[in-house]
Amino acid sequence: MKLLEEKILAEGIAESDSILKVDSFINHQIDPALMKQLGEEIAAHFTGKGITRVATIESSGIAPALMTAAALGVPLVILKKQPSKILNQDLYQTVVTSYTKGVSYELTVSSHFMNENDHVLIVDDFLANGEAATGAIRLIRKSHATIAGMAVLIEKTFQPGREKLTEQGIDVFALARIAKLEPGMIQFVEENICQN
Amino acid sequence: MKLLEEKILAEGIAESDSILKVDSFINHQIDPALMKQLGEEIAAHFTGKGITRVATIESSGIAPALMTAAALGVPLVILKKQPSKILNQDLYQTVVTSYTKGVSYELTVSSHFMNENDHVLIVDDFLANGEAATGAIRLIRKSHATIAGMAVLIEKTFQPGREKLTEQGIDVFALARIAKLEPGMIQFVEENICQN
Repeated sequence: MKLLEEKILAEGIAESDSILKVDSFINHQIDPALMKQLGEEIAAHFTGKGITRVATIESSGIAPALMTAAALGVPLVILKKQPSKILNQDLYQTVVTSYTKGVSYELTVSSHFMNENDHVLIVDDFLANGEAATGAIRLIRKSHATIAGMAVLIEKTFQPGREKLTEQGIDVFALARIAKLEPGMIQFVEENICQN
Repeated sequence: MKLLEEKILAEGIAESDSILKVDSFINHQIDPALMKQLGEEIAAHFTGKGITRVATIESSGIAPALMTAAALGVPLVILKKQPSKILNQDLYQTVVTSYTKGVSYELTVSSHFMNENDHVLIVDDFLANGEAATGAIRLIRKSHATIAGMAVLIEKTFQPGREKLTEQGIDVFALARIAKLEPGMIQFVEENICQN
């Protein structure tokens, strides 16, 4: 059993067949020591891949992304949800529509912090429908940077996020993979792990 | 010259007599190694004060607050800007009005993550008019927790934030104190520093 899976079993709350509350250590309250370990685990998976920057969408991905960037020794770029007030040629923008939440927002990044020389690792807390993730990928590609992969703390494998990303050639890495949720029950994807 | 002041002189941009852009290492792009050092500096100032939790307002304070919480070895609680959809007796709420931005928002915290046994250090990126900070203080006091202090990366001393907080008995600690801004010019508060 992996570190994050143990924590989810101990403190996560399955509220329905789609909602997992991890408020006590990821979303509302953050356990910094755990987050540092998770960032190091993500960094270890992507080490040697030539990553120049980590990117995340504000704001729930900031903590794991910061710890990953710290472990990789590269800057973190926060893709901003606010629209630019002034049309600015230094700014890339894309519209992200969340069908689950019924809202649209503009995602922006400055060309000063992302360009054709970058190889970018995207980090977020959850991967579910992949709406935010595909928006981030579109935005990063607008800046002419390449994408090293997408790392998330928790993947809901019963939603189509991973499929959308792998179809685009994105390497998806999740620290905890949820197979099924029911009120009071959390089931992980079983994986064969070979250890020495 | 302190670490953060050197970075501000090297990369900060004074856009007007009130706006300092620090997009390249604090707000849009984050330098994780620098942020870790700044978090450790804040933690060192408040060490031994019995802090049980660090709090910040989403989202620009998350990075320095996370690094401070990591250095202090305590959890980080993110005070959420979203209103609660369901009236919930487990949730404390307060309305914060930003006169500078012309907006109001609800700040919320769950009683699960802040209570009468807590002694809380608030961490944010900027202290200017102190509107968000006084909202955070009000909210934390609603939870019956006590406040150990307010730490910020950058203080604009020509705006009334510090005065508002010290009037309420709050210990304010700033890593860089800006005395004056003009387009192209950044002046820090001169302090007598005794070093061995």
